[in-house]
Amino acid sequence: MTSIFTLETPTVLIDLDIVEANIQRTQTLFDTLGIGFRPHIKTHKIPLLAEWQLKHGAIGIAAQKVSEAEVFAAAGCTDILLCFNLLSPAKIARLRALMDQAHLTTVADNLTVVRALSAGMAGSATPLDVLVECDTGMHRCGVQSPQAACDLAQAIATAPGLRFAGLMTYPAANATAQVQSFLTAARDLCIATVGHCDIISGGGTPSLMEAGLSPILTEYRAGTYIYNDRSLVARGACTLADCALTVLATVVSRPTDTRAVLDSGSKSLTSDLLGLTGYGTILGHPDAQITGLSEEHGHVTLPTPTFSVGDKVQIIPNHACPVSNLVTQVTFHRSGTVIRQADVAARGCVT
Amino acid sequence: MTSIFTLETPTVLIDLDIVEANIQRTQTLFDTLGIGFRPHIKTHKIPLLAEWQLKHGAIGIAAQKVSEAEVFAAAGCTDILLCFNLLSPAKIARLRALMDQAHLTTVADNLTVVRALSAGMAGSATPLDVLVECDTGMHRCGVQSPQAACDLAQAIATAPGLRFAGLMTYPAANATAQVQSFLTAARDLCIATVGHCDIISGGGTPSLMEAGLSPILTEYRAGTYIYNDRSLVARGACTLADCALTVLATVVSRPTDTRAVLDSGSKSLTSDLLGLTGYGTILGHPDAQITGLSEEHGHVTLPTPTFSVGDKVQIIPNHACPVSNLVTQVTFHRSGTVIRQADVAARGCVT
Repeated sequence: MTSIFTLETPTVLIDLDIVEANIQRTQTLFDTLGIGFRPHIKTHKIPLLAEWQLKHGAIGIAAQKVSEAEVFAAAGCTDILLCFNLLSPAKIARLRALMDQAHLTTVADNLTVVRALSAGMAGSATPLDVLVECDTGMHRCGVQSPQAACDLAQAIATAPGLRFAGLMTYPAANATAQVQSFLTAARDLCIATVGHCDIISGGGTPSLMEAGLSPILTEYRAGTYIYNDRSLVARGACTLADCALTVLATVVSRPTDTRAVLDSGSKSLTSDLLGLTGYGTILGHPDAQITGLSEEHGHVTLPTPTFSVGDKVQIIPNHACPVSNLVTQVTFHRSGTVIRQADVAARGCVT
Repeated sequence: MTSIFTLETPTVLIDLDIVEANIQRTQTLFDTLGIGFRPHIKTHKIPLLAEWQLKHGAIGIAAQKVSEAEVFAAAGCTDILLCFNLLSPAKIARLRALMDQAHLTTVADNLTVVRALSAGMAGSATPLDVLVECDTGMHRCGVQSPQAACDLAQAIATAPGLRFAGLMTYPAANATAQVQSFLTAARDLCIATVGHCDIISGGGTPSLMEAGLSPILTEYRAGTYIYNDRSLVARGACTLADCALTVLATVVSRPTDTRAVLDSGSKSLTSDLLGLTGYGTILGHPDAQITGLSEEHGHVTLPTPTFSVGDKVQIIPNHACPVSNLVTQVTFHRSGTVIRQADVAARGCVT
């Protein structure tokens, strides 16, 4: 029985009891709603955890990069939605190669992407399923109107090697009404012109609890829910007890009565703020504020002289996903007892 | 002759012509000042570049983690300053093991660290050189007064297995007068009590050009100068033409006339702001602002409809060091012609 507090720091810990509870609770929510649930692997980047998500009833996974899809297809995932505009012939060739191992779906929000995908699928016996990405309030990628969605759906439907498979959005939190109305109008236009619109894919952990307010959705993508983080606690989407990913750090300096320095900085906690103040919550020390980060130092401001040099602390970071992407391995544990190290197999998959 | 613009994106590019110019210019500055120059490898994390820095006259390297020191000692670096408080017996044992390959120096700013280092060096024939870290204005680690520096120097000097080797600071930019006065008082006290104070190590790229205003320094550490970045351009420490590290990205979406989306987000550009507005400078497009980052998306705001889907752009990130830490490989080039891929050998060295 090895305690997490014996580990070298900084290190990223994953509490598997909390992971299982988060998977179970979220899958049950979508089972109840009758909406397919498709976890996004960007948060954990670990094939074993995707396997758990699928065993609990997920319909497949979502990934953002071809290199991520390659890792998870090799690990046995057979239904992958790659929800990012692909343009490069090399990447599309890699995607096409994966179609031997898994059912692949991708997205497009413009004609250049549709033409690139079609060119890359030339001569294929099996068409590639393509969703039209819609901007329903996030103002990131996505066509700007239901009519534009329909126009692009027609372009996909008539492009050699492609099949129009439906619509996809990454909604802003609290934009539920907008999501439902945009997607309903777009779906109706697509059915009227193309004849079908099978998949309506929504997503995002922050608005996960409101998924039922967009009953048009046939499936939902979420990643962060498996670990949760400080940003989701701040938004009321979960509690500190639902946060599975923590960073274990050591107090290495107490320069003054009101300051402590941790051996965990932006290289393990990330500098993501996501609108928050400070860079993490130190468990058991709600008054201690992580007010700044250098790459290897966490700057803690203390109301009272709490910590001694050598103390180990567990920190819930602002944003779990980039923390996974910083480290080669994480430590699986249950209630503080180490289970084993796990490789973050899809870490650093940028292309 | 392969152009960088044929590479899959996003990818991190290093212009070796600029690297060489930055190394040469900085080494010449310190040669002229008569101050030893000790590059910090945290920025590049690539042994070949440390080799270049040493060939140009650097007296050794600085590293922040034992795992970094292990990578660079294995690559042949024979003088390493590890400028971070070490506490764990396992890390100190690894540091001690490296002393067979290289001359190691480390730091301490409190008695707990001194005791841990001394315990770890028990029975060693060769003492470990230890500098006292001083807080001369940065308010990170460091003893708070010259007298506290002297007291800790005495503790080091009398601790078995350790040798007091001098003083170290990581100054805030523009704190030069403070650096000189603190370190002069501390050095004089140390000489009066311990009998010597050989090394006075300052550091930081932002204040590099003012190093001559702290003539007490015997050596200077800097990392970012080898690549430079947008934060250093903003501080007037360099120009855009001195920035060796860029991120090559592709425009993947043009949702509206005033917005473009890049395939490079916080997973390749980092979310470090360092007090700046926006997340990078797009070369040749000074009016295009990277106003937001998702993990895989760069959100660009455009005053005029500049970009087309498929365009490739080169971005100078806010902060070069964390970009190196995100990617497994970078591409070396000269003026846009690819030389080769290079492993970021010390990426992810957190312990």
